[in-house]
This record gives sequence, C-alpha cells and structure tokens, in this order.
Amino acid sequence: MKKVLFATTALIATAGVAAADVTISGYGRFGLDYNNANANTGVNKWGYAATGASKTNLTSRLRLNFDMSTETDAGVTLGAQFRVQADSDNGEAGTGGWNGARFYASYGGFELGVGNIYGAIEWAPLVYLDTRSSGVGITGMNDAHAVINVNAENGAGGGEYYNWDYYSSTGSGANGVEVMYSAGGFSGHLSYSEQNDEVIGDPAVLVEEGTRRTAAFVSYNWSNWIVTLAAQDSNQEWEDKLFFAIQGDFGQYWAKAAIADNDGIKKYGLYGGMDFGAASSLVLWVNHEDKVSSSDVANGRYNNDRAVNADGTAGTAYGVNYSYDLGGGASFEAGAQRLPNKQTQVQAGVYFSF
Amino acid sequence: MKKVLFATTALIATAGVAAADVTISGYGRFGLDYNNANANTGVNKWGYAATGASKTNLTSRLRLNFDMSTETDAGVTLGAQFRVQADSDNGEAGTGGWNGARFYASYGGFELGVGNIYGAIEWAPLVYLDTRSSGVGITGMNDAHAVINVNAENGAGGGEYYNWDYYSSTGSGANGVEVMYSAGGFSGHLSYSEQNDEVIGDPAVLVEEGTRRTAAFVSYNWSNWIVTLAAQDSNQEWEDKLFFAIQGDFGQYWAKAAIADNDGIKKYGLYGGMDFGAASSLVLWVNHEDKVSSSDVANGRYNNDRAVNADGTAGTAYGVNYSYDLGGGASFEAGAQRLPNKQTQVQAGVYFSF
Amino acid sequence: MKKVLFATTALIATAGVAAADVTISGYGRFGLDYNNANANTGVNKWGYAATGASKTNLTSRLRLNFDMSTETDAGVTLGAQFRVQADSDNGEAGTGGWNGARFYASYGGFELGVGNIYGAIEWAPLVYLDTRSSGVGITGMNDAHAVINVNAENGAGGGEYYNWDYYSSTGSGANGVEVMYSAGGFSGHLSYSEQNDEVIGDPAVLVEEGTRRTAAFVSYNWSNWIVTLAAQDSNQEWEDKLFFAIQGDFGQYWAKAAIADNDGIKKYGLYGGMDFGAASSLVLWVNHEDKVSSSDVANGRYNNDRAVNADGTAGTAYGVNYSYDLGGGASFEAGAQRLPNKQTQVQAGVYFSF
Repeated sequence: MKKVLFATTALIATAGVAAADVTISGYGRFGLDYNNANANTGVNKWGYAATGASKTNLTSRLRLNFDMSTETDAGVTLGAQFRVQADSDNGEAGTGGWNGARFYASYGGFELGVGNIYGAIEWAPLVYLDTRSSGVGITGMNDAHAVINVNAENGAGGGEYYNWDYYSSTGSGANGVEVMYSAGGFSGHLSYSEQNDEVIGDPAVLVEEGTRRTAAFVSYNWSNWIVTLAAQDSNQEWEDKLFFAIQGDFGQYWAKAAIADNDGIKKYGLYGGMDFGAASSLVLWVNHEDKVSSSDVANGRYNNDRAVNADGTAGTAYGVNYSYDLGGGASFEAGAQRLPNKQTQVQAGVYFSF
Repeated sequence: MKKVLFATTALIATAGVAAADVTISGYGRFGLDYNNANANTGVNKWGYAATGASKTNLTSRLRLNFDMSTETDAGVTLGAQFRVQADSDNGEAGTGGWNGARFYASYGGFELGVGNIYGAIEWAPLVYLDTRSSGVGITGMNDAHAVINVNAENGAGGGEYYNWDYYSSTGSGANGVEVMYSAGGFSGHLSYSEQNDEVIGDPAVLVEEGTRRTAAFVSYNWSNWIVTLAAQDSNQEWEDKLFFAIQGDFGQYWAKAAIADNDGIKKYGLYGGMDFGAASSLVLWVNHEDKVSSSDVANGRYNNDRAVNADGTAGTAYGVNYSYDLGGGASFEAGAQRLPNKQTQVQAGVYFSF
Repeated sequence: MKKVLFATTALIATAGVAAADVTISGYGRFGLDYNNANANTGVNKWGYAATGASKTNLTSRLRLNFDMSTETDAGVTLGAQFRVQADSDNGEAGTGGWNGARFYASYGGFELGVGNIYGAIEWAPLVYLDTRSSGVGITGMNDAHAVINVNAENGAGGGEYYNWDYYSSTGSGANGVEVMYSAGGFSGHLSYSEQNDEVIGDPAVLVEEGTRRTAAFVSYNWSNWIVTLAAQDSNQEWEDKLFFAIQGDFGQYWAKAAIADNDGIKKYGLYGGMDFGAASSLVLWVNHEDKVSSSDVANGRYNNDRAVNADGTAGTAYGVNYSYDLGGGASFEAGAQRLPNKQTQVQAGVYFSF
C-alpha cells in the first residue's frame, strides 16, 4: 500500500503564478463518557423513558478539515472550508458525513464569508472555553458552561442550546453572509442568515417564516485583557441574545466573567484556569441560570414545558477540566460537569491533531 | 493546526516502479441569483404554488475531484474519478455528498470507461458553452442554451432537460460503459448504459423496463474550425436525439451554430463571443424551440402537460455572460438568461479553481 | 486544472517536533459479474421473485483509505482510520459514503483499537484467502470459501454471513474496543463490542438486548507454517463460533485446512494455490457445510426457514481464482464459485491500487 506522508512542516511550492492550495487537517478523539441521564430500560432519573443506552459509553469523533484557497492578482484570497466528521456518542456509532461549505474572500484584516458561515455569536471571543473540546471533557458536554446556552424548556439536558448561527460540522449550516474585520487589538463581526419560508397549499400560504438572524460582536484586547460584547436579533422565539464577557491572563493563571440575557433569561458565569507542572492545565467554571419570571409564565411568554421545568433547570451548574499535553499534538483530557437538574457527566480520553 | 500546502506545481516522484498517484482539484463558486420564477407565498408568475424561496438568493457550490491512477508495465493507465460536491441554490443550503465513481483504462488515444460514465452526448464538443459555468452566470442556469435541452413538458423551467447519460456529480450516474478515441483532429465516443428493470409481485412482473441508452459522437477540428455530430437512441420516450454543430474561431472572436432534433422537437441555436480589454470576455446566445406539432398532440404522441404548455415553452430564448479574469485561477462572472415563458435569471459572483 | 501528484515514494518531512501525517491510499476494481441467481422477471431458479437485475452485470468498487496519525513524546502512536467507498453490484450503481472511524493507540507490538474495530474473528489469520478480493473473482463473492460463513437459513445465498465484528467499509461498524499484540511469530487479538438495547414504551421495556460479542484469536507462525485458533461468544443466536486453521507454504505452492463450529453447524475447508509463469497465480478451494441436525430442527433450535432449506444449503461448495500481475499495482483477476444450492458466479476484471 502506498504511503503518502503529509508533513507538519509546510510543503510550499513557490513557482508558478497561481498559489492555489488544498490543506487537510483535523483531529481525532476517543474516550469514555459517564452520563447519569442514560438508562437501559424503565425511566431515567427524571422519569423520562430510557433510551437503551448504558450510563457509560465509548465516545469518539474524527474530524477532517479540507481547506482550499487561491489568491487573485490583486491580492484577494478566495477560499472555501469543508469538513467531514464521524461521531459516536451514547452507544450510537455514526458514519462520516460532509457538511455544507463556507466560502470566503479576504483582504488584509477584512473577510467576507458566505454559505455555512461562522456566525458572529459563535465566533465571539470568550463564548467558549480555551480547552481542547471548547467545554470540558472529551465532547465538551454541550458547552453547558456557556451563558448563552439555556437549560429552560425541558429537564433532560435539552433546552435552548446553540440557537444561533454557527459553522455546522455535520449539516448545511445557515446559508448566510458575514463580514469580519480585525486591526490591532480590535475585532468585529456582523452576520446575517435567512431561511426559506415554509409554505403549503395552492396558492401557497405561509406556515412559518424562515429563521432570520442578525448577529454582531465587537471585541478588544490590550495587554493581558480581552473584552467582548455580542448580540443576536432573531425572528424566532427565545433567540434574542445579549452577551458580555471579560477575561484577564496573569502568567500561569487566567480568569473570566460572562453574562448574558437570553430573551429574558439571565445567566452569569465565572471561569478560571491555571497551568502547572510540566504539561498540566486545569479549568474550573460555575454559572447560574435565573428562573423564568412568573409574569412571563402567566402571560404565556413561555410555553408549558418551559414553565413546568423552570425550577428544575434554573440554578447553578459547574464543571472542571484537566488536560495533560502528551506532545506531538496529542493530549489527555478529563472533565466533569453537573447541571442544575443534577445531570452529571464525567469523561476521560485522548485528543490528537494532524 | 497543521498546514499542508499542495502546490500547483506538480510534485512528481520518479523513483519506484509504480507510478500510482492521487490528485485533488476542484473549484468553488459563490454569488447572487435572481430568479423571477421564485415566490415566497401565493403563486408564482405562472400560477404555480410558491416554494417559499425569495426571488434573490445566495448561490454556491464547492466541488472536489479525486483522481486516482496507476500505469501497468504494458503502459496502460488504469484509473478512477470520484467527486464530492456541496450545492446551495434557491435558498436551500446543501451538504456535500460523494458521487458514483468512473473507472477507466486508457492507452494512447483510446479510453474505455465504466461506471458513472461521461456519456457520448454529454461529452460531444460544442454541446456546452466554453464558459466557467458551461452556460451563463454562476450556475449555468440549467444550460438552457443547449439545443438538446427541451422546455416542452411544463412551464416552470422543468422540461426534458439532461435526459442523457452524463457524469453525475451528486448521484451514482448511469452505470454504463463507453469507448473514446482521438487521433489528430478526430475524436469519437460511443456509450451504452442499462438500468435494472423494475418488477413487482411474486412472480415478478415487469413494471417498467430499465432505461437503456446508446449514444455516440464524432467530431473533427481543423485550422480554426470544429464540427460535431452526435446522436442518442433510448428505450424511453422523448430521449432520442440528433445533434449537429459547427464552430469557428477568428482571433478574439468565435461563433457557433447548433441544431438538434429532440424526439420530434427541433431546436436551433446561435452563439458568439469575444475577448476584449486586458481580461474580459463576453458570450451571447439565442436559440429557438419549435412548437410540438398538432398531429403529435392529437395522436397522443405528447402527454397533456406537454401539449398544454407547448405554446408557452416554444419560442426564443437568449442569454449573455460576462467574465473577468482575476488571476490565480479566479474570475468574476455575471450572466443573464430569458426563456420563452419569460422566466428571467440574473447572476453574478466569483469562481476560483484549486 | 491543478494537478497534485502524490508519489508512491514516501514524501517525508523530518523537521519539527510533531510527526502528524495524513495518508491517502486505496484501490479501484471493475469487471463483469455473471450470477445465475439473478432474473429479470418471473422467478429465479429457486422460485424466488426476480429482482429485475440481469444475470450479467458490471461490477465495480472504488475505495479510498484516509489514515491519520501522530506520535506522542513517549513514543505512543495515536491514529485513526477512515474510509470512503462506492460500490456497484447487480446492476445497481452506488454513490460513495464514509464509514465510521477506527481509533487506535499503539506502542511496540501492542495496539488498542476503539470504534469501528477490526474484530478478532475478522482479523484472524487464515480466515480469508490471500487473493486480491479476499475470496475469488472481483467481488470476493461473499467469501463463501470461509468456513465461518454459513449457508443455512435461506437458499438465495443469504444465510448467516459475516455475523461477527469487522471493520465496516460503508457502515458505522461495531463501536467496540480491542487489544492486539504481536511478538516474534506470535499474534493475539481480543475484541469486545456492545450495542444499545432496543427499548420502547414509557417506561421503556426491553424489546431486544443489544448485540454483545466477545472474540479472540491466537496465531503462531514458524518457518513455513502458520496456525490460528479463534472463537466468538455472542448473546445473539447463531453467532457463537470456533475456528481452527493451518497453512503451509512450500516454494511456489501453498495449502490450507480450516474447520469451524458455527453454533452447532460444522464446516470444513481445503485450500491450495500456486504461482506459475512470469506473473500468474491460481487458487482453488472446496468446503463442506454439515446439515442442521434433525434434533435441532425438532426442538426448535433452528427456525423454519433454516430447517426447510437445510438440505439445499448443506453440502459442498468450491471455487477457483486466477490472477495475472499487470505491474504498477494492477492485476487481472478471474474467478468462479459454485454453492451447494447450485448458485454459480463467474467474474473477471481488473484491480489497481494507489
């Protein structure tokens, strides 16, 4: 069998007028996931029907990024990002699938994105953790640390999560457009997406207006500090968002505070981390989700599910992640997380990049 | 993240007895598409139920070609072509998917193809335009310029389009076999495909005979001229075809005339183009589709839809494309097209190859 | 179009601390397949409803393997295997699709595998033939030569085939875990997989226990001999297996004997081959599947289908394969096979690796 080794050291051909290139990169991860929300039979701890999945499962992901680009005579870079990913979670093995492509034109600090866009909320600095999984453990555990993910709605860990435009790894994404700009310590991002209306009948009558989201962030970093302000306006319920966060880095320590208003539901978070020993780092987080206001429930501002579970989902959540750098782009990761409804997850395993 | 840059300059290893290789190439395109056939709600301009898509949408495609081949000791090249493509059109974002593979054995000017074949009609010189999209604009607008695409059947831009074997970018293709030969100015191509019959019941009774198509072309080019004669014989209705075209190139100008008989429906086209300025080129086309004959309608040779819309779909269509070379394998493309039923499309955007 | 040639000669970059790499390899194959089990209409030779497929069809496959790995500072290799494959058989053309990924950590002769595992039965030496297809012809013809594939159950070539964990080329595979070890002439392998239970209702009641398989092999080779002992224990009916085989290589000749107990059904096989001429090799095999015992049928140990067809599926099968090396990683392959129920297949075509 032929072996073509693509080196980590760039293999650059300088001849020729064109500079088109394709790069393949990505990561693999695998480990064990304990989740007390799973139950083989009967009901789980909240009384919901069991899914047949064991509490402890193998979890894994393989991600390949294909990046294609060229540069015009005027110095504009035209390119695209494409991804294939295979996930196995909760005992369900998955096959790989391509996502939708993101296209871009960039020049200096400016970039225009089209298609499966990054999204300004998703891309806002300080939304995610600076860990291998962007959250804790191997999978990131749904990024429950993020103050723009809301538990309200149902008690099984669902809630209003990821209700913004983001670069979809396995789907087509938002089919939007975005502009990004950075200069010195400043970075800004404005994104817009629009889905087709859903219509039925002849003549076709509007059943549901397609999702329309406008989002933006501005961020500034100076010496050891970074601040971010982000917002989203959507024509869908529960999706309006306002986010603010600040982080400081102090040698081997860092700390972050974040707050968000999620269409009326406030959420606050505190985060901190440290590097220690030869290759270890630790991250801790705690956040609090406010109850849905009784007036909102009374006037129908929230649906039944949300109201019923408001008490169970509001409250304090916390998590921890430990990482050990194995060298060669690999690391050992372990993490745990507990949600207000007492859902507990513990994960450990390895990541490797290529 | 590791960056592996694949250069445009070939990276050729000459050592070793085997010469197997894999190449990755392709293109990206994105832009805006205006289509007056779309309507958000109610009915569109022909009274058909709206689809919920706006008249103006983002349009994009990413295409990656994987080409694999090796050479036997006797000098025969054995290879395969494989493609993954993601399209977004009419406000519907799509994910990527692999097509079916085409396999080939080639020696000198001769090539045997198997599987997702090119098809002799599809591959006949002068069928398509020599533009970035093969038609006009960003998407090619369904290649309405081609005299082997027929509008008859329905008024919404459907019709009998692409009813021949072609290398499918997103499907499995024809599962056929083909032989191609070229020598000097001559090129010829013969293709055959056969699908399984559809049967039901026990014992299984024939419901529909699988599509069986035989197609061929011969083409010759000398000094500044090229002529092509192509034909298809099919066991399916509406698919028999006869195509003839001639093109002349005169410095910065070129002109083409084409005619086809599509199972009784005649279609004629005139095409011309010119290069101008530093990097610009322009293409213009006009074609005419004859009405379905009244005797054909009377004796049931055409189905109702076809008869009803015969007037609306027959007539003159025209289009224009403007291209500006941006360098580095990229170009700006803009185009417009109007069909006999007054469907109008206008598109502009960029292409980049890698 | 840019051409990036990946050479067969390894392109190794030695600089940099990390050694992460991606390799692409694979093979293509295409040819003709004659199968007397097919019938266009009516019933096939066993009275089963025809499928609409002709007796003779094009058959083809394109397989691409993506192999990613890196090495930690401690010398442990972390990697993943990923595959995309497109198959066309029995007149049905297929598109490509990714499988599930296999992850591994290896150190010296030891390897831990996770996800779409190889499986210890699948990986046991001497289970498959050392031919291009692992069986005979172009497709391998379902590896009917293997004594762990059982014809009993139905007469149309179905039976209990491949009822063990294996690296799935088109599906997600077993989501298991395995350890492999080799040192000197010894190799051993232990694999385990567990699927989620199937439950329905609220509270969820167990409908079917998820498949749980444990398999192992030990193998030893010395001078010109190799022996293998393998076994599988499963919680599903018909899946318990015990396999033993021995092979000797004598210059241009080799011979193998294999025996298996497949949950009560015994199967024996004899295999032999020789190289001759400049580039030719021949493989012959014969095996025998015992009848299901009448007591097993009587006490309901086997279901009706299995009992009814027990006579038709038990008995002797044989096959032959001829291979001619074309150089450059390509070969011509031809093979034939006859099952106890008189299903006959004949195939010829080419393979090429890249």
